[in-house]
Amino acid sequence: MNGRMIFNLQGKILEIIGSMMIFPFVVSIIYRERSGIYFLACGAAILAVGHLISRLCRPRNKAFYAREGFVVTALSWLLLSVAGALPLYLSGQIPRFTDALFECVSGFTTTGASILPEVEKLSHCMNFWRCFIQLIGGMGVLVFMLALLPSTGGQDLYLMRAESPGPSVSKLAPKVRQTAYYLYIIYFILTGLEIVALKIAGAPLFDSICTAFTTTSTGGFGVRNTSLTDYSPAVQYVISVFLFFSGLNYNFFFCLWMKKWKDAFGSEEIRLYSGIFFTSLALITANLILGTGRGIEEGFRHAFLQVGSIMTTAGFSSADFDQWPALSREILILLMLIGGCAGSTCGGIKVSRVLIYLKTVGKELSMLCHPRSVKVLKVEGKALPHNVLRSANIFLITYALIFVVSLLLVSLDGYDHTTNFTAVASAIGNIGPGFSLVGPTCNFAHFSDLAKFVLMFDMLAGRLELFPILVLLSPATWRRR
Amino acid sequence: MNGRMIFNLQGKILEIIGSMMIFPFVVSIIYRERSGIYFLACGAAILAVGHLISRLCRPRNKAFYAREGFVVTALSWLLLSVAGALPLYLSGQIPRFTDALFECVSGFTTTGASILPEVEKLSHCMNFWRCFIQLIGGMGVLVFMLALLPSTGGQDLYLMRAESPGPSVSKLAPKVRQTAYYLYIIYFILTGLEIVALKIAGAPLFDSICTAFTTTSTGGFGVRNTSLTDYSPAVQYVISVFLFFSGLNYNFFFCLWMKKWKDAFGSEEIRLYSGIFFTSLALITANLILGTGRGIEEGFRHAFLQVGSIMTTAGFSSADFDQWPALSREILILLMLIGGCAGSTCGGIKVSRVLIYLKTVGKELSMLCHPRSVKVLKVEGKALPHNVLRSANIFLITYALIFVVSLLLVSLDGYDHTTNFTAVASAIGNIGPGFSLVGPTCNFAHFSDLAKFVLMFDMLAGRLELFPILVLLSPATWRRR
Repeated sequence: MNGRMIFNLQGKILEIIGSMMIFPFVVSIIYRERSGIYFLACGAAILAVGHLISRLCRPRNKAFYAREGFVVTALSWLLLSVAGALPLYLSGQIPRFTDALFECVSGFTTTGASILPEVEKLSHCMNFWRCFIQLIGGMGVLVFMLALLPSTGGQDLYLMRAESPGPSVSKLAPKVRQTAYYLYIIYFILTGLEIVALKIAGAPLFDSICTAFTTTSTGGFGVRNTSLTDYSPAVQYVISVFLFFSGLNYNFFFCLWMKKWKDAFGSEEIRLYSGIFFTSLALITANLILGTGRGIEEGFRHAFLQVGSIMTTAGFSSADFDQWPALSREILILLMLIGGCAGSTCGGIKVSRVLIYLKTVGKELSMLCHPRSVKVLKVEGKALPHNVLRSANIFLITYALIFVVSLLLVSLDGYDHTTNFTAVASAIGNIGPGFSLVGPTCNFAHFSDLAKFVLMFDMLAGRLELFPILVLLSPATWRRR
Repeated sequence: MNGRMIFNLQGKILEIIGSMMIFPFVVSIIYRERSGIYFLACGAAILAVGHLISRLCRPRNKAFYAREGFVVTALSWLLLSVAGALPLYLSGQIPRFTDALFECVSGFTTTGASILPEVEKLSHCMNFWRCFIQLIGGMGVLVFMLALLPSTGGQDLYLMRAESPGPSVSKLAPKVRQTAYYLYIIYFILTGLEIVALKIAGAPLFDSICTAFTTTSTGGFGVRNTSLTDYSPAVQYVISVFLFFSGLNYNFFFCLWMKKWKDAFGSEEIRLYSGIFFTSLALITANLILGTGRGIEEGFRHAFLQVGSIMTTAGFSSADFDQWPALSREILILLMLIGGCAGSTCGGIKVSRVLIYLKTVGKELSMLCHPRSVKVLKVEGKALPHNVLRSANIFLITYALIFVVSLLLVSLDGYDHTTNFTAVASAIGNIGPGFSLVGPTCNFAHFSDLAKFVLMFDMLAGRLELFPILVLLSPATWRRR
């Protein structure tokens, strides 16, 4: 294990996150809020510590492999969450450190589960920070570092792989650094467009900025106590449309940019994503109109926002969907598990893996009938490499195992099955709200500290696609060979 | 497709099930019940029809492959259920045919989910029939046929494979017929021993016989309205012990019989099964004693019976476990999904598959840390063949897909998530009761016909390990090449 390199990168991560705290400080100046001073102080301290660490731990060699990639990624995210929680805790706006940490893990992992009953009680700069860390976490801070800093060795691909969502990294450009750069460009353009669209639709500027941050990152934190319920239909539609976009593989936008129309619209993943999205939308709209007597426009609007919000794992709410008819609720729970496309900012199992699973079962059925036929599993027109199939299967098994263990630990709090199940599904899928006691009108404050730590673990495991966190905890990683 | 052979075998199945109806008729004579006449009439008619079909459809060639094996198995189980439901329906004891069919599918698949609010209202011969079909379904009627009838070609292995639970058929003897014979011997010895033990423990003879049938088949139908609640602690302990035995791989008993002690107790599956069983037992006992203030003996007794009953997917109840603390409930839901050992009469995913999944994840973690290491996945001391691993993965995916689609369809009835989730888990795992509205004190009568048919499909799919039923429904099966 290349310890110096690992520490060196952790130092750089601290430098980045410390510098970022200048933004909420600026917000605090605009709103003349005293609590902004905590960002200045914490930011400066974190920057200094980070600089010191990266100075002291200059790597002696460039040995950097998958194991180091996983460890760096997992440690960075732990460090980020602790650093990000400091201003929230020290300012006293979130009095318990566990809660501040929960809020920050939920922020960076773009889960959006909150322990705050009333977010409006927080100062503007604190709310801005909550939304801003979702923006940072959405595309990934290591990817950001790759885009910014000159490469120091062969670590790029390992870091990218460990932090990027999906069964395989789709490289937009031959060089990892270039790919990271393009990803961030697309990400910022989407966010910028949404800020403008929200402003035009009539939302206040502060709300527009914060909501755009948490839409394109599919985070789901809001700056209102009632999430999106109070916004006008126009604002809700804008958010819904951008949610749909944010669930797409960024490859799609890159193909559009390069004018490769056929590659963009021919992608099987994009088609399956759209298929699941619009089928769910149609079913829930019908279910709402027929089952609850809502008007057509209202039913469609709530269904659109909720399908977008849950499938992209953002987790906004425009209505108390815990009160919706059973079919709608089950569809939403299912969408929680599926999530958005690989190569997006979404959580969940990912549409591309679901595509692989569906094709595997189809192939198996035809093999059972005609055992001597030779059939190649093709995804996106190419034969699926065996290691991708293997890792998709292992992902599903690991997802189920983490799910089960978390469910048992969370159930120690004594809540009902729907609460336990959807709290874990929501955490590991990086969604935010669930059903019953973690429904859209509730929050996570009532859980015990043990349950909160389990859910934080799930959020991190879900955001980093399980393995970095498991590798960090695995004894084999730390054994000398 | 060898249609004549398929029809011929269906005829034989009808002959067997028709002949079996003599047993409930004998019971009706003992108890002087008029309703027994329906068994005589139906039995004779079914026997005649079966004989006619097998006579008319003598196979012209012996071509018989996996596809035929799956189709024969799936069709047989549908036919069995319809034939078995006739006396229940025609006698008027279950007035709706869908309900009678549900009861029979639930019986043959050893699920044990009932639509009857009060089983004691049924005559003795009807209750005997409900329990007897669980005995038939437990080990499988095709296996029974293989043990009895002379082989007519190469179909033995395909039929055995399609009907036996577990990732691979463990042959006890070189010949399939011999294996089927040994399995039934062990099965009948277990059942016989339990009848004697129950009688000694003080249960009435009729109850002893019926309960032994539904214990060793892990079916879970009872002849009392209150399942096992009214029986004495001694009787409950006897049932619990036999439940534990019934969850073991029959290979274990065969090894004992052959005095291969090391093979019997060294099996990784047996160890994992016992490990899960006794860990769950300890946790639930502690949870009941600390959480509900039950005495040590009472807590242990209920936990033992419930862990045995749920993990072996029998589904008896000695207490309203829907009212137990949350941890106990979640453990039981988890046990529903796992099920017993392969090569037992249990449903669920099976311990041997769980073993494969756990080992896969362990191997993956070590591979991620040390990518160049070579590690072979070993199960029971042997390298795991790739096709077994592959089929275990596909099984999990297919299980999840069927689960999800069923959940959506069942949710149309508008019940809560816990009801929907555990009803489907209970049906596909062949357990019986679930939680909330399908809890141990409730029944399945309140579901719509659509939901009942979905659950019947799940029970059959679960009992036959998913693929026979899917192959039957797959268009590729019926396409000419």
